[in-house]
Amino acid sequence: MNTAISSTQNKRVKHLLQLQEKSRNRRKENQFVVEGLRETGLALQGGFKLLEVYFCPDFFSKNEFKAIPDFEHTDAEIIEISSEVYQKLAYRSSTEGLITVFASKENSLKTLNFKTKNPLILVAEAPEKPGNIGAILRTADAANVDAVLIANPKTDLYNPNIIRSSVGCVFTNNIATGTTAEIIEFLQQKNITIYAAALQASEIYTKMDFTKASAIVVGTEATGLNQEWRDAAKQNIIIPMNGAIDSMNVSVAAGILIFEAKRQRSFL
Amino acid sequence: MNTAISSTQNKRVKHLLQLQEKSRNRRKENQFVVEGLRETGLALQGGFKLLEVYFCPDFFSKNEFKAIPDFEHTDAEIIEISSEVYQKLAYRSSTEGLITVFASKENSLKTLNFKTKNPLILVAEAPEKPGNIGAILRTADAANVDAVLIANPKTDLYNPNIIRSSVGCVFTNNIATGTTAEIIEFLQQKNITIYAAALQASEIYTKMDFTKASAIVVGTEATGLNQEWRDAAKQNIIIPMNGAIDSMNVSVAAGILIFEAKRQRSFL
Repeated sequence: MNTAISSTQNKRVKHLLQLQEKSRNRRKENQFVVEGLRETGLALQGGFKLLEVYFCPDFFSKNEFKAIPDFEHTDAEIIEISSEVYQKLAYRSSTEGLITVFASKENSLKTLNFKTKNPLILVAEAPEKPGNIGAILRTADAANVDAVLIANPKTDLYNPNIIRSSVGCVFTNNIATGTTAEIIEFLQQKNITIYAAALQASEIYTKMDFTKASAIVVGTEATGLNQEWRDAAKQNIIIPMNGAIDSMNVSVAAGILIFEAKRQRSFL
Repeated sequence: MNTAISSTQNKRVKHLLQLQEKSRNRRKENQFVVEGLRETGLALQGGFKLLEVYFCPDFFSKNEFKAIPDFEHTDAEIIEISSEVYQKLAYRSSTEGLITVFASKENSLKTLNFKTKNPLILVAEAPEKPGNIGAILRTADAANVDAVLIANPKTDLYNPNIIRSSVGCVFTNNIATGTTAEIIEFLQQKNITIYAAALQASEIYTKMDFTKASAIVVGTEATGLNQEWRDAAKQNIIIPMNGAIDSMNVSVAAGILIFEAKRQRSFL
């Protein structure tokens, strides 16, 4: 099927804009919008169900669909859009000419499976800035962690800025969300040792043994980790700082901690 | 002296806006604008010369000046501004009521002094995004590196977004800028070993000995480090990645490398 849309007032265009802009709409419809060939391919590889494909022939040739792994197996609706419609939907300087719609995943703790028997898990408590969440997801992908758990999420994962800043790693990671209590219970039931990045009663992170099943928990920069996490942790850990300010970007801190664990695990 | 400004059309207000918005104006006048009490204090601590102080009495009480270390020793002009003028000058939701103007530093390699005899140096080649530069400067402050060298800077350091995202670490670090060739020559003259983060012919970063005088060089995410750096390096280093994407945020990569050096140096 190949319906051409040339008006920015078209119902579908309005619907796409709302999906991009409003977390509420994404949640209600269990759908989200992806931009670009690479990101679309990663979402397919990540097992997300492709629902709709919008392409603008001024920028995108149908031949390019072949470059997307698994694209031929989808039964998504493919719709041509005009340049004007594309400009309305696309992020700033994007010229790829491809916008896709996928079904959201549930990101439930219940359906989470680990890749290894001795998992390394990254937990982020209430991260806020999409740029930081994206950077954390890139690190988690590079480290091939078993899972990323997000406690008390402040924004849904399918926020366009998270998709963009994660360069698609929001699709390649094993991600689950939950309340702090749910995630602590989940980790404890699975006998995964909790290490909480905190200032209070902390040991230097390099002194820990991260070779066993480990969850490294980072909090928000402003408030750090709450008492709930500090109580649940086997050990509070700290990155020693000796500057004038002693504050680090949360995604940088997560990277330092996760890659110390990777070093101890011989980067396997 | 205490001139009250209540019109957003005032010449000084226009001048401040131009200093905030235009790199060219900052460079021409060797001045830049700082927002907030903490950042102003850090700039003073960092040895920057305070030129002008604008405060809005609706948000800022003159008593608060006492909270700024060294404030009493400045001979800066102090000027009251109206709430309307303040809103025009301040970043989004800022309610601190304080805007200051400082003289820029030269950030020259010639005047750079190291804190230690066995320096640890972070070099960033042509970093672009203010958020990444800010995060790198925070890491450098926390690690108390001897210097941050920026090769081929794409933006001036006194860009308001860099000041903001560095939470003032742009003032606490020892920073110099130069061309790639100048920085390589500087490091070689001082017998500082160059380790270049690169994909080609690389060794795992944890296998290096960073306890001697070391410069860790990171490039831009898109293109990586150029041949010039790879030729100058004693060793190309790599962070092993085994994910689907294998790309990391540059400020996260810098953090991982610098803190591996800190680990080897026992965080001293």
